[in-house]
Amino acid sequence: MSRISQEDLRILAERTLTRAGTRPEAATATARALVYADLHGLASHGVSRLPTYIAQLRNGRVDGQAVPTVVATRSAALVVDAAHGMAYPACALAVNEAIVRARQCGSAVASVTRSHHFGAGAYHLEAIGAARMVGLAFSNSPAAMPAHGGRRPIFGTNPIAAVFPRRDAEPLLVDLSLSQVARGKIVLAAREGRPIEQGWATARDGSPTTDAREALDGMMLPFGGAKGAMLALVVELLAAALTGANFGYEAGSFLTADGERSAIGHLFWVIDPAAMAGQDTYLTRIEALIELMMQDAEVRLPGERRRQLASSAARDGIDIPAALLDELNTLT
Amino acid sequence: MSRISQEDLRILAERTLTRAGTRPEAATATARALVYADLHGLASHGVSRLPTYIAQLRNGRVDGQAVPTVVATRSAALVVDAAHGMAYPACALAVNEAIVRARQCGSAVASVTRSHHFGAGAYHLEAIGAARMVGLAFSNSPAAMPAHGGRRPIFGTNPIAAVFPRRDAEPLLVDLSLSQVARGKIVLAAREGRPIEQGWATARDGSPTTDAREALDGMMLPFGGAKGAMLALVVELLAAALTGANFGYEAGSFLTADGERSAIGHLFWVIDPAAMAGQDTYLTRIEALIELMMQDAEVRLPGERRRQLASSAARDGIDIPAALLDELNTLT
Repeated sequence: MSRISQEDLRILAERTLTRAGTRPEAATATARALVYADLHGLASHGVSRLPTYIAQLRNGRVDGQAVPTVVATRSAALVVDAAHGMAYPACALAVNEAIVRARQCGSAVASVTRSHHFGAGAYHLEAIGAARMVGLAFSNSPAAMPAHGGRRPIFGTNPIAAVFPRRDAEPLLVDLSLSQVARGKIVLAAREGRPIEQGWATARDGSPTTDAREALDGMMLPFGGAKGAMLALVVELLAAALTGANFGYEAGSFLTADGERSAIGHLFWVIDPAAMAGQDTYLTRIEALIELMMQDAEVRLPGERRRQLASSAARDGIDIPAALLDELNTLT
Repeated sequence: MSRISQEDLRILAERTLTRAGTRPEAATATARALVYADLHGLASHGVSRLPTYIAQLRNGRVDGQAVPTVVATRSAALVVDAAHGMAYPACALAVNEAIVRARQCGSAVASVTRSHHFGAGAYHLEAIGAARMVGLAFSNSPAAMPAHGGRRPIFGTNPIAAVFPRRDAEPLLVDLSLSQVARGKIVLAAREGRPIEQGWATARDGSPTTDAREALDGMMLPFGGAKGAMLALVVELLAAALTGANFGYEAGSFLTADGERSAIGHLFWVIDPAAMAGQDTYLTRIEALIELMMQDAEVRLPGERRRQLASSAARDGIDIPAALLDELNTLT
């Protein structure tokens, strides 16, 4: 591991992206989002993605020059076309529009179509929390999970994230993918020759397996069985059917250089508490709930651990594998 | 079991509610919702609830004369005050307002505060599907589940439901509670002296148990462990913090005659596909996804089984325990 400051990492990421033909605003938005993930201990959504991003920018699967635009709009609903560019500038446009419209209309939904990997869902919600609003984010992703009882990959691991502002504390952030475990856990078990738990994954033919190597050729399983699979379906429909984007089973992988374009979708939903029972009532209520939750010593607030990691990494620097840093330096 | 037509059951339910001091519109709305549940095989949200509803109407925990009103509003957001009345007329007002506003603004959120048991989430979404819109419903409910790692009941089983209209078929309906299993399954195991599965429930002190009798004194557990508990938290905040309603741990039980008022909250979210990528694009997309899902012979669409049950019960009548029918006849 090499330790690097978030600012140096951001500059390195931005330079790498610019060098691969990304326009400046898109490079900045992408670099900021990736470094946010690394800062918060989410290395799998951090600069580890850059080598594949760069390969996809170079072979045209992602268009570094794309400029996201609002293509459909009513007062409390809009679609942003990412135009096969990076997800991050398109998501920033969608989220900012949603905040402005929610302030005016009380709530708003902003979606993104023809998009790409949106990384850590929580990242996009930070702006909503800072605006003292409640927000939810949904994204589909390339197919990795079957429908309940099914034998082919249809749904992505389809993250859901939520932000709830608090009175005198950082907003509460919930961020989860709908798979039982992250694929990285199976990769690790396979590498160490350990079995995986029942319910994590299937073999290639869709049958349940505890063999980690078989699972790498198979499918991830949704958390919570049939109920998790239903949520994955709901997210596909919100993020892709409503936006005209690709479903998980149509989307080219985020993880390989070659393949079809991803062209997936995201959907953000923003509610202004001031338009509901009122900002003060809302803040009093959320603090009461959190206070009661914290009376059980073993309860942790969602997002708390990430914030602690971010706080120490902001002070001490971020640990990045030395080989990855070398690779990024070669790419600039 | 006695078999009764849905129309006769509706009239019986309505008469029972009117007799207990419910104003006519509220009695009609409640009777329709309960019979919908029985028709769709959801007896636990059907007229089996009436004896407790009636007891709560008589002792003032529910106000049969309450008239729901819109108490806060912007163009795409509103709060309905159920005023401690039955949930159903308040939900109907909220959903109808949300549909009108979503048609105008592209999306809208309508919530309900100081409310009661809202029964089958899918029932409220039927009107949204009929209006060719996408809808989600969230409700909190009296505390039955702990926070992840916690030892006290904080969250309700907090249902989430969703409706997605289709081109030439009935809308797709998803409806799930966030507990691993319905409490009825534990009641049944206890009655039959069978153990329950790990992960369904805890004993009174919050420790995991497979003893069904211990579990009846303990807590339900969320489906999917920590992730399910996070979703339960999100639903509490959407349905209760935003609306100024009671959290699960503050809400009097739906299932007992005596206790505090429930005063919980619901939140409905409606999106007009015409305001996003367009009605035609949306319909083409959802049909493509469902067609692929159906290629696996073992995959069932959510809501399909309920619709089959409803179709035969509409033709042949609904089976209701004879003792329950006798009790309802006594109450009228």
